[in-house]
Amino acid sequence: MALTNASEPKKPQPQPQLLLGTFIHSKSRTELEYIHNAAVAVDDGGVIVAIARDSESVDAAKDDVLRQTGWTGSDVNVVACGEGQFFFPGFIDTHVHASQYPNVGIFGKSTLLDWLATYTFPLEASLTDLAKARKVYTACVRRTLSHGTTTATYYATVDVPATNLLADLCLSLGQRAFVGRVCMDRKELCPPYYRDESPEEALVRTRESIAHIKQINPGYELISPILTPRFAPACSSDALKGLSAIQREEDLPVQTHISENKNEIRLVAELYPDSASYTHVYDDHGLLTPKTVLAHAVHTTEEEARLISQRGSKVSHCPCSNSSLTSGEARVRWLWERGIEIGLGTDMSGGYSPSILEAARQATLTSRHLAMQMEEGALKESTKLTVEEALYLATRGGAQCVGLGDKLGGFEVGKQLDAQLIGLALVQEDGLRAGEGDDGVMDAGNVDVFGWETWEERIAKWLYNGDDRNTKKVWVKGRLVHARP
Amino acid sequence: MALTNASEPKKPQPQPQLLLGTFIHSKSRTELEYIHNAAVAVDDGGVIVAIARDSESVDAAKDDVLRQTGWTGSDVNVVACGEGQFFFPGFIDTHVHASQYPNVGIFGKSTLLDWLATYTFPLEASLTDLAKARKVYTACVRRTLSHGTTTATYYATVDVPATNLLADLCLSLGQRAFVGRVCMDRKELCPPYYRDESPEEALVRTRESIAHIKQINPGYELISPILTPRFAPACSSDALKGLSAIQREEDLPVQTHISENKNEIRLVAELYPDSASYTHVYDDHGLLTPKTVLAHAVHTTEEEARLISQRGSKVSHCPCSNSSLTSGEARVRWLWERGIEIGLGTDMSGGYSPSILEAARQATLTSRHLAMQMEEGALKESTKLTVEEALYLATRGGAQCVGLGDKLGGFEVGKQLDAQLIGLALVQEDGLRAGEGDDGVMDAGNVDVFGWETWEERIAKWLYNGDDRNTKKVWVKGRLVHARP
Repeated sequence: MALTNASEPKKPQPQPQLLLGTFIHSKSRTELEYIHNAAVAVDDGGVIVAIARDSESVDAAKDDVLRQTGWTGSDVNVVACGEGQFFFPGFIDTHVHASQYPNVGIFGKSTLLDWLATYTFPLEASLTDLAKARKVYTACVRRTLSHGTTTATYYATVDVPATNLLADLCLSLGQRAFVGRVCMDRKELCPPYYRDESPEEALVRTRESIAHIKQINPGYELISPILTPRFAPACSSDALKGLSAIQREEDLPVQTHISENKNEIRLVAELYPDSASYTHVYDDHGLLTPKTVLAHAVHTTEEEARLISQRGSKVSHCPCSNSSLTSGEARVRWLWERGIEIGLGTDMSGGYSPSILEAARQATLTSRHLAMQMEEGALKESTKLTVEEALYLATRGGAQCVGLGDKLGGFEVGKQLDAQLIGLALVQEDGLRAGEGDDGVMDAGNVDVFGWETWEERIAKWLYNGDDRNTKKVWVKGRLVHARP
Repeated sequence: MALTNASEPKKPQPQPQLLLGTFIHSKSRTELEYIHNAAVAVDDGGVIVAIARDSESVDAAKDDVLRQTGWTGSDVNVVACGEGQFFFPGFIDTHVHASQYPNVGIFGKSTLLDWLATYTFPLEASLTDLAKARKVYTACVRRTLSHGTTTATYYATVDVPATNLLADLCLSLGQRAFVGRVCMDRKELCPPYYRDESPEEALVRTRESIAHIKQINPGYELISPILTPRFAPACSSDALKGLSAIQREEDLPVQTHISENKNEIRLVAELYPDSASYTHVYDDHGLLTPKTVLAHAVHTTEEEARLISQRGSKVSHCPCSNSSLTSGEARVRWLWERGIEIGLGTDMSGGYSPSILEAARQATLTSRHLAMQMEEGALKESTKLTVEEALYLATRGGAQCVGLGDKLGGFEVGKQLDAQLIGLALVQEDGLRAGEGDDGVMDAGNVDVFGWETWEERIAKWLYNGDDRNTKKVWVKGRLVHARP
């Protein structure tokens, strides 16, 4: 498929579509559902309108949904799974700094606060150069789309024009996105070259960014603004209060960071002596809402978890970042048990990878590092996340986290088609793979299926060795936004 | 380049070669050396015979080595770095079970002992089917070569014909390898369907495997046998003693596992009540030699580390495996401080990835998980491994570990050319990459270089987001054994 340049918006694809083959999605946190011989009908607005499942054959499933929809075969676009392929819900990246994309992998031995000053603020500040911002944001959106990220919850920068550009690019390239202009006005932490000069300026710029998105995407069907106080230590109390007022006025989502690093937590306690905890800082300022995504929550206490749960706020788990910056190991099971919904975040460039599949993989490994510190027993066992749980976090968990649980995350009638077509390579009898050999083509990826694996084993192989090469096609709201040969 | 079928041995390339451009390798554990405008002359035996470095230009460097060697431009094969490319030493995988390759990523929530019984023994046993073994081993050798693994230290299986086949395939496909027939004769641990029936049988089969390699590769120039007691709990005391006798007689390397898992350590203490520790079991049986590679060493005590160091034995660090199977976090810095040389192992399929670059990445992350448990201070800081240290482990450390430190691991006169050509993609001004766009080609990999990065930053990006797509060409002993477009 031709991938158009960001500057030329793609034509919509108003045709109804039929997807045929195997569909896999989370049935619950602990279970994946494998739906074979299935057909999914998607209308020209990108909404799933009919499903036939577990039919006698793919053809029978196709006939079934054509009957259900009254469509004829000729007026629909048909996409059928090839050998070893399946449809999977699109990934949801619940925490990612688009503006830091060029720094992925560059963090040295730093931890949060010195990492911000050394690597992060200078890069973010430089994106007032809109040519540079276009280069960085285009690369980021295209790269995450190629990894199957159909929804991304972005931090942009302080700068309004660059933030608006990110929103434009997401709309044009077709990625569902929450785009946040970063609020940071506290002079103790934010450098003179990169901050809002006052709470008032922070709020005015925030409203400018909201107005832009309203204009380019009325109703926020694909792109939504998100209120983005960088994190408590970067914001004045007045800025936080003002954002809360905008939140109530506009009913917008909120994103911020929480309890990522112990020094950060100490700093918050110093800066907000009247609040009982880091979580209470946000709650005291009216920002702990059911539409709030809190990134990290590594060192959250029992009392804080209870408060987050009571308020219905969500957590974005960012294992790649938390390991890279030596922040700690967030306790996913522990947060779940306290009633908190969780999604995954790449947190580029604290996290090194653009891939939510990598985040899911690292979520399982990080849970095992947590388990290593425990005595043998039920708690140690339950701390480890399974393949199924990691992929739940990447899809339905993420959808819940960003408030789109009713629209995204699985294949059900009424949901929108945000999905990917996954293909795994089959090893032939000679040990080579189809298309591999004398022509040197090796780009079927790293997952080698030998043919005797169960579907559960294939999914495990994909989780642990899969990459963007396995993501053959990506749809957002029914529109094909990425494809590879 | 045409990649030939495993059944058709490749033609050797007896022509001298000139490599031109940028060369990067470890100068020490803590430092990478960046050699620009350089030329490396490799004779038709695959040995580096002249180097010109930091010249005024690549052409000047080329002229310099032609003068040094007396070669004319016409009788050599020239390989020049393209834009953004550099030469790097080949990776050394110091611990990998070729026979488990089809199980990568499949481990559920298991830990070592139940993982062996559930997933591992049945697969290994099934490779007496030589057609299946050929399929599995071909895929494994080709996949690891494509990731830049120029030397692999393999466990095969108990079966002699299948082990011999692995040796044949490594020779034919051009991968330098240590190939070990697995000795396991202890009935308490080894299932009836998969074991040596007696110590005598274990030793006879071991000698058969050695004889085969002697025949196909006299002098062990590319393929060497390696004595492979699976691990102490799988072997009888008599088998261990017999292997020690063969070791002294043939002066062969040894590989085994040590202190991977706490239950395993308890089991060893029960089975070998007369030995003071797990390490002492090997020492008491004469197997703790300077040519011994001990995989894992996660829970090794101070006293055991001292003994390993005294004997000059080496450790293979397998972070992917140790995290996946919840085994623990091996202390690389701690082992180094005790004078032990360390390499990296993928440990497929306890480890999920065929890539030593992934092992290096996980080595840095695992070291950070270790550091998370420490109080702030110098020890916490030093526990974290740097990019440079991880890449040392992957190359020079690995070479030391397998006893080839004088032959491999860097670009020096007298060393053999086991190397890879690495290419990183440059993001263009429009946010796309060369070759990417309307034709849908996205296979330049995941490393996006924006152009302003230092060389150190490019290497960090490669470590954290690189994969086999960045490994453009691979040479072993001067022979081109893998290439991609």
